[in-house]
Formats: sequence, C-alpha cells, structure tokens
Amino acid sequence: MGKTIAEKILSAHAKEDVIPGEIIIVDVDLAFVQDGTGPLTVDQFEYLNFDDVKTKSLVFIDHASPSPRKELSNTHSKLRNFCKKTSAGIFDIGEGISHQIVAENYAKPGDIVIGADSHSCTAGALGAFATGMGSTDIALAYGLGKVWFKVPETFKIVLNGDLQKGVYAKDIILYLIGLIGADGATYKALEFTGETVKNLSMESRLTISNMAVEAGAKVGLFSTDEKTKEYLELQGRGDDYKEIYPDEDANYEKIIEIDVSKIEPQVAFPHTVDNTRNIKDAVGVKIDQVYIGTCTNGRIEDLRIAANILENRKKSDDIRLIIAPASKNIYLQALKEGLIEIFIKAGATVLPPGCGPCVGVHAGIPSDGEKLLSTQNRNFHGRAGNPKSEIYLSSPATAAISAITGVITDPREVL
Amino acid sequence: MGKTIAEKILSAHAKEDVIPGEIIIVDVDLAFVQDGTGPLTVDQFEYLNFDDVKTKSLVFIDHASPSPRKELSNTHSKLRNFCKKTSAGIFDIGEGISHQIVAENYAKPGDIVIGADSHSCTAGALGAFATGMGSTDIALAYGLGKVWFKVPETFKIVLNGDLQKGVYAKDIILYLIGLIGADGATYKALEFTGETVKNLSMESRLTISNMAVEAGAKVGLFSTDEKTKEYLELQGRGDDYKEIYPDEDANYEKIIEIDVSKIEPQVAFPHTVDNTRNIKDAVGVKIDQVYIGTCTNGRIEDLRIAANILENRKKSDDIRLIIAPASKNIYLQALKEGLIEIFIKAGATVLPPGCGPCVGVHAGIPSDGEKLLSTQNRNFHGRAGNPKSEIYLSSPATAAISAITGVITDPREVL
Repeated sequence: MGKTIAEKILSAHAKEDVIPGEIIIVDVDLAFVQDGTGPLTVDQFEYLNFDDVKTKSLVFIDHASPSPRKELSNTHSKLRNFCKKTSAGIFDIGEGISHQIVAENYAKPGDIVIGADSHSCTAGALGAFATGMGSTDIALAYGLGKVWFKVPETFKIVLNGDLQKGVYAKDIILYLIGLIGADGATYKALEFTGETVKNLSMESRLTISNMAVEAGAKVGLFSTDEKTKEYLELQGRGDDYKEIYPDEDANYEKIIEIDVSKIEPQVAFPHTVDNTRNIKDAVGVKIDQVYIGTCTNGRIEDLRIAANILENRKKSDDIRLIIAPASKNIYLQALKEGLIEIFIKAGATVLPPGCGPCVGVHAGIPSDGEKLLSTQNRNFHGRAGNPKSEIYLSSPATAAISAITGVITDPREVL
Repeated sequence: MGKTIAEKILSAHAKEDVIPGEIIIVDVDLAFVQDGTGPLTVDQFEYLNFDDVKTKSLVFIDHASPSPRKELSNTHSKLRNFCKKTSAGIFDIGEGISHQIVAENYAKPGDIVIGADSHSCTAGALGAFATGMGSTDIALAYGLGKVWFKVPETFKIVLNGDLQKGVYAKDIILYLIGLIGADGATYKALEFTGETVKNLSMESRLTISNMAVEAGAKVGLFSTDEKTKEYLELQGRGDDYKEIYPDEDANYEKIIEIDVSKIEPQVAFPHTVDNTRNIKDAVGVKIDQVYIGTCTNGRIEDLRIAANILENRKKSDDIRLIIAPASKNIYLQALKEGLIEIFIKAGATVLPPGCGPCVGVHAGIPSDGEKLLSTQNRNFHGRAGNPKSEIYLSSPATAAISAITGVITDPREVL
C-alpha cells in the first residue's frame, strides 16, 4: 500500500514498513532544546547517567535572550556547561530562534528532527519529520540517539488557487486552523499539497509548517521540490537535498481542499488561535503594541513585506512597534537590504534575533488592559506575560499597516 | 569677585550674584525623569494637585525598555498617561537614553537641567548646570518650574598633556575618581579645563561629565568653545550656542592638575568606581560578558572605537558581547557607517537604544559567579542584577579587545 510523507520517513528510519497507530523506536537525526525547556533536559540527562550525546544535539538560548533575570541566567549557565561537558552544540544569545537556525543549517529532507519546543514542526517545510516533544524525551534522544513515536495518520491539505494581494501564507494557516479548530488535527500528520503550494516560497512554507501544531498536528509536511533545493543551495547545503513525496496511492484519513483565492486577510482574536475571523471583523480594533518577528514570521520575506509598508511612513504615536529578525543571518541580510534602517526610521524598536516578547518572558510585556497585534503563532491567555492583556494574530502585512494607523487595518488598503 | 562656571549659571538664574553655600530658588530650563524614577514623580505631582507642568518637562522610557515585566509595563502606562494629561513630552522605547537625548536635543550652554537620574550631570559637557535630583524634587520642578539649590564650591580640574594611544576620556575620568575617591568631590562643582580639554571631542567631554557624580560631584562642567558650537550645529541647534566660561579671578576650593600623558588605560575593579587600577593589574582577568554602550560610552565615537577593533575579528566563544547605541540617532548613524554589521559579524548581540543591562533590570543579567567588563559608569555590588556577579569598568577600546580575547586585555596591543 502507498505511503504518505510521514509514513515514508518513519518507515525509512524504522527500516521496515510502518502503518499508522504502530509504536516504533527510531534513530533521531537531530534533537534540540531551548533555554526554557533545556534545563529540565539536562537534569534528566544527568539523572539517567548518560555521559555524552549520541546524535546531533543542539541547545539554543533564544527565549530569555539576553537574560532578564538572574534565575534565568543561572539556567543559561547550566546549559552552557552542559555543552562544554558533552558534544552538544550551542547557539547562544544573538544567534536567533531554534526553529529558524534548524531550518537554515540542519534539517534535511527525510530527517527526523525533535525539539523541546512546540514549534519544532517548522522544519516540516523542508520535508523533515520535525516535531516538538517534552524535555525528558529529548534527554533520552540525546543519550540514546533514539526516540519512540506512534505513527500518525495523515490529513492531506490541498491548497488550490492564487492568493489575493495582501493575503499570505500566515493567512492560509490561520484560515485552516479556524476551519478545523485547535484540536482539529490532534496527533495527525498534515501534508500540504496542491497548485498553490508549488508557488509558495520556502519561507512561506516554514510559516505554515510552524503553525501545524496549532491545529494539534504532530507534523506539518511538504514534499520537496525546486523551491526546497533552491533554499538549501542558498544556505550552502545543496547536497542535503533529496526527493520526498507521498505515493500516489497513499492513504489519507481526511482530505481538506481549500480554494485560497477566497481567503481574506485573517486575524485570530483572543484567546485562541482558532478564533480566526476575516479582517473586516477586526478592522478598527485599537491596539497598543505591534510585534513583527518570531519563528512564524521573522524571516527575510516577512521583513521585506513589513518594510515595503513601513518605508517612508511613521508608526502611530499611540503604539509601540517591536521588530525582531528570527536569526543572525536574517538580521545581516536585513541590514544589507536597508530594512533595519527603514524600521528604525518608522519608529520601530529592533530587538536582537530571538523569541523576544512572543513568549511573555521579557522585551515587550504589555501593561494591564493593553491589546497586542503580533505575527506570532499563539495568542493564549497570558501568553504575552500579562493575563490582563489580549493578543491578536495576523500576517506581517496586516501588522505593519496597523502599526501605522494604530488600529487593526486591512493591508489591501495600501498594497 | 570672579565666578566659576557654576556660580555664573546660578547667578544668572537667581538674577543676583550668588556665592557658595547660599541657598537659592531658581527657574529650571529642563526637568526630566526616566521610567525607574518617573512613577514616583507622577505620584507626587498628583498628590500636590498640580495641573500641568510649568517648564520644559520630559519623560524617558529607557531603563526597562522594552518592558521585561508586567509590573514595570504598568508603570510605563502611568508615565504615558501622565504625558497625555499634561504638556510633558515622552521618549518611549527605542528612542534612547535620557542623558543622550537631552545632550542631542535640549541642553543649552547656561541652562539649568535637572533629571531624576544620577547621571543627569552628563549635559555639563555642554556648559549646562545639569544634575540629578530625587523624584519629588522633579515633581516640584514640573509643577512650579523652579528648584532649590545650595550653591556649590568648585574644584578646578586642569588636564594637560596628550593622551597616549589606547587611552580615552573614560580612562581620564576613571583615573580622576581613583585619585580623589568616590566621595572626593561631594556636592562640589567640577570644572574641567586645561590644554587637553581643548582637543577633547564633545562626545569625550560627555563621558567625563557623565561620571562627575561618581566622585560625588553635583555637576561636571566644561567651558563652551568651538567643539561645543560644532556639536550643536551638527544637531541642528547652532542657535543654542552661547559662551560660558569662568572668570579669570574665579575662586576655586581646590585645583587638581593632571598630566594625562601619564595615564594608562584604567580598569575599575569590583565593587566601587574608585577601585581603579592601571590596566596591567587587570590583564588576564577572565570575563564572561562584555557590554559596550550606556550613557557613559554609547556614543558614535565609542562605537567607532569598538568597531575599529572588532572589524574582521570574532568575539571569544567564552563570552557574550552586548552592544547598545545610546540613542536612535546614534543607532541610525552606526547603521549608515556599517558599524552594526561589524558588531553582528563579530558575534555581538545589538540591543535597541536604551540603558540595557547597565541597570540590572534586564537584557543581560549575569549568572552567579560571572565577571562582566562594561563601559558603564557604575560597578556597585549587585548593580548588574545579580549580587553574586562582579563588574569591571573600562573604556570601549579595552572592552572591545577583551571581548575578542575573553580576558581583560590592554587595548594598546592592537592599536
């Protein structure tokens, strides 16, 4: 019987044909943690008396970076010491967000990638079975080089049609999550396909895979193609390319077809990602802070979209505009293209690469009663570090134009 | 009898000749607060039933910027609301450090400038009687446009000789503080003069005035000259220039003469600013974090010095390097000159303009046992946000070369 992408990757790693529902133990190609989850992983690694990591293992200090509190600084030291004692590699402050660095430098088509962070599914865009797991799972993967999975069923998401001007990958994934709900694909593999996908840049695909978990999915996968090859070549990793695609007779638990030409700019209202509405229902909502960045929308494509809108304009006096590139490479590219200058002239506060205020740890915590508009992936109650605030989610274009007007605004007005 | 600069400015404001020791009430030209001290000022202003500010009044959100905690975010909202209700102006996140913005845009020769921050003495470099005061004093200055002073005695600091290569204004002021002690000039006006001063850039003078308070001084004053005029013209404020200088027969409580050609690079050891030693006693001290920035050394001259050393070099893997321009204007200038790119390529984490980790509130708090080398003005116990850490102070050149080697290093080795 034919296989989906997820089944193919897991079968190859299990060295036998696997079927949904089966429990398997497989080799891991890459395991990583960040500074929120990593300290627990280190504790478990030491408790289990492992002496060194048995697979490619990474540590990212991206969440509280640079550290806002001594207690967190001490956990950073613990991670740094772990990387000195073992063969694990470290990306310290200023390097960027784990998921972006994994996409740029490590994830390969056909890989199994696990990270102690929900949005580890980002690398699915490159055709890697990439997923988030708990700190202890990563400790075991570090120490044994292996992990267990239940093989997931697959949902085929068929995207057809051309996107309207002002509508982006972020709007597609917000629309899908609104459609099927936050638990609409629990532990399923999402496989994105269709005519629209062929024209989506790798950056746009990363945005979509990044948010697969917001529908409960285990992974969000794309077949590899010319765009995958180009992206890997651009990163100096052309040799990492390989073809990954589902069999024609693969078995899907569900097929969801979406005509993306009918999607309007989307806004997820507080306090759930699936509380998604068309922009017209959001227009006019007064906001206090706009954040453009994160592992969802902090890539160069996103920054270009935002800069195109912000160039020669000024943010509203009534809002704070915070922008953070997702990685050092993106920051350098944005510098070269003059985007950072555009942002600062528009009144933005540009943060160093990292998770910034998305995780509510520092660098832009709202005050009581404030409303935020963010390009991040989650708007859970209290996510921004203040349970008395509210988070709206949108694309970088919607965020950028709204930063200028001070209220949520349809980006098609200026495009 | 002749007057010192301080006596001249205070006499002009008192509209009569004043002498040291006299208590006077005078008009204030500029009063400001930052987000640490401002909330108390607002409370007092409201408690005293003032309805609007009676002098040029400013609020700077530069300390916890962008906010790392909801409690601080709420105090930021209080400040923003105060500025909406009154005629006070606000510089919100991303704009920069109060003292730098005051120097760039507001302080004029002959002005009386008071700020609810110790380092408000920075503007003394422009020939303004600029000093730090408590939050309540600023509330009264906001509401009445007036403040009281005891007229200070003046110490004349005569700087002669040429600086060695690798020795900067920061080394001069560290040397002076080491010489006279942290209480060596309590409530005195320092007046910097001599052949060396003529060649010091305005940026270097700002560094010296900034740290006058570290010897206990009320103000750190310079006569105005061509350099003052050029600086004001560069900021589009040529009309603000006026001549300020002491009378030839002015009376000084003390005259301290320093041959700056004999000063070596200085390092202040933990935990007091006057614990200053020649670089040779510091060389080899292993450090964990280097910070270049602050109201002391975050100006374009400082960033150029650092970039000159960091260009085509990489920071040590064992340290974190954090750099923050002191204001948005400096950030834009540094962008234009390619300095930000040099910093990021060298491995630095570039923060948005603001006080950053200098005040121990966020953005680079050390872990237990760590040693920091910083271009800031204070190394008090716990200042960095962790009482189990230690701070060393130096010039940007010493900081930059030490970031490369990972240990405190004499900048003359690479200059």
